[in-house]
Amino acid sequence: MDIANTIEQTRKFISMARQQGKSIGLVPTMGALHEGHLSLVQHSLSECDFTVVSIYVNPTQFGPHEDLEKYPRPFDKDCKACREQGVDLIFAPGPDDMYVDPHLTWIDIEKLGDGLCGQSRVGHFRGVCTVVAKLFNIVLPDVAYFGQKDAQQLAILRKMSSDLNFPIEIRSCPTIRESDGVAMSSRNQYLASEQRKQAVCLLESLKLAVELIKSGQRNTLAIQREMSEKIEQFSDAKIDYISIVDNELLQPVDTVSGSVLIAVAVWIGSTRLIDNIMVDLAV
Amino acid sequence: MDIANTIEQTRKFISMARQQGKSIGLVPTMGALHEGHLSLVQHSLSECDFTVVSIYVNPTQFGPHEDLEKYPRPFDKDCKACREQGVDLIFAPGPDDMYVDPHLTWIDIEKLGDGLCGQSRVGHFRGVCTVVAKLFNIVLPDVAYFGQKDAQQLAILRKMSSDLNFPIEIRSCPTIRESDGVAMSSRNQYLASEQRKQAVCLLESLKLAVELIKSGQRNTLAIQREMSEKIEQFSDAKIDYISIVDNELLQPVDTVSGSVLIAVAVWIGSTRLIDNIMVDLAV
Repeated sequence: MDIANTIEQTRKFISMARQQGKSIGLVPTMGALHEGHLSLVQHSLSECDFTVVSIYVNPTQFGPHEDLEKYPRPFDKDCKACREQGVDLIFAPGPDDMYVDPHLTWIDIEKLGDGLCGQSRVGHFRGVCTVVAKLFNIVLPDVAYFGQKDAQQLAILRKMSSDLNFPIEIRSCPTIRESDGVAMSSRNQYLASEQRKQAVCLLESLKLAVELIKSGQRNTLAIQREMSEKIEQFSDAKIDYISIVDNELLQPVDTVSGSVLIAVAVWIGSTRLIDNIMVDLAV
Repeated sequence: MDIANTIEQTRKFISMARQQGKSIGLVPTMGALHEGHLSLVQHSLSECDFTVVSIYVNPTQFGPHEDLEKYPRPFDKDCKACREQGVDLIFAPGPDDMYVDPHLTWIDIEKLGDGLCGQSRVGHFRGVCTVVAKLFNIVLPDVAYFGQKDAQQLAILRKMSSDLNFPIEIRSCPTIRESDGVAMSSRNQYLASEQRKQAVCLLESLKLAVELIKSGQRNTLAIQREMSEKIEQFSDAKIDYISIVDNELLQPVDTVSGSVLIAVAVWIGSTRLIDNIMVDLAV
């Protein structure tokens, strides 16, 4: 496994792989790799000849009061995990390598970024779109892998890639969960032991929504109300949002029909967690 | 010469050229080709193995009251000119092929797009950046060619390409002029014969600015005042802007020093013309 710290090095490694006729898979990450990331890596390894993992805590997707500084950066551990999986190349630019001052170009997406996490994380998806476009242009992958856990990010990046004609396939992989069902996240490690127990409230509310829909409930307000009550049973939980949206443009729906995304964001103490589930009545 | 009307066809032609180890040059145009465009084509033909000319009147760079509908579209004549030059491929998507409804992704650039043409053409450079990024991702050229006549567009696209890490070299080519010095433009054909004569006012004002600087004038307000007076001698001319800006971020300067761009936009009747000149005191 090679580790490239600069864009130029990375391009050289990629170019060599290309010359050997290899297909390239990219797994963009902010490091602090968990089983969720490694599942993306495994998908890439099984589908592409050359797997690149980028590790970069992208400052432009953090708001001014978010956790940029304290975001975990266990780089050696991440490298070890990638090496064990069989990753070909880690691209780990330094904090200032990705943005040359003054960086002035931004990619924005209408509609898809307005609701859900976009409401409390203003500018977040602009930062995500911009850095992912940069990674796409640096690595020039055939396939890029993203987790279904970040459902809004996934929908936005799919749309960005298609609107801007990136010649890249966006592949999504299912959310990987801990034994108690909590979605794996690098932010779970912020939680104290009692808080960690309460993190199950997200999936429990989503499961409740699925049950309600199975039993015939189609009114999203009613479903959201019951989800809210479920989460409020957990003393450390504070709801950021509970949203039921169409699966394409992520716009709120009044009635469950076709394919919908049910997404929640909950503060557990000072840690914000997200989770989601897709419900497809057409299937 | 091949003509591709769809993105898919274009990708096939490009991919074949790539497999033959050919380097790709792209000349993005809105058609109505004149000697200025053909000079870009010639640069590409001399530097790249495979030259692509895109012909697409991009609706998203026109304002609601601009000349989208009446913009000239002499497609057969353009094809003939390209064939005579030795162009390998024309990419001419239909009006709706480039933007799939709903198109939601936009590339914006800070600072560089605020002044000059950005002031009277709100949203213009957002449309330009977005369509050029799309063309870059469709054609994947090694080199893309743009005219110095559109100096602000050139500076913006250079910055966009570098900020987003497109693996593409942006090459600029000098403005090509008619025998009376008027910069070639597809919009010149809108001018009635008497108006056409008055179009020399742009270059005359720029030449005056150069003379003033050569004779020691460094105060940009004074230079702009004299340029303004020069243009006002032409009865059909109405000044949109006269700007003297630094050559990197295109910010107005009080004093001429180092490398500056002097740019003018003038309405001749209902036709808006632009021209510019670079002055480099460091050389």
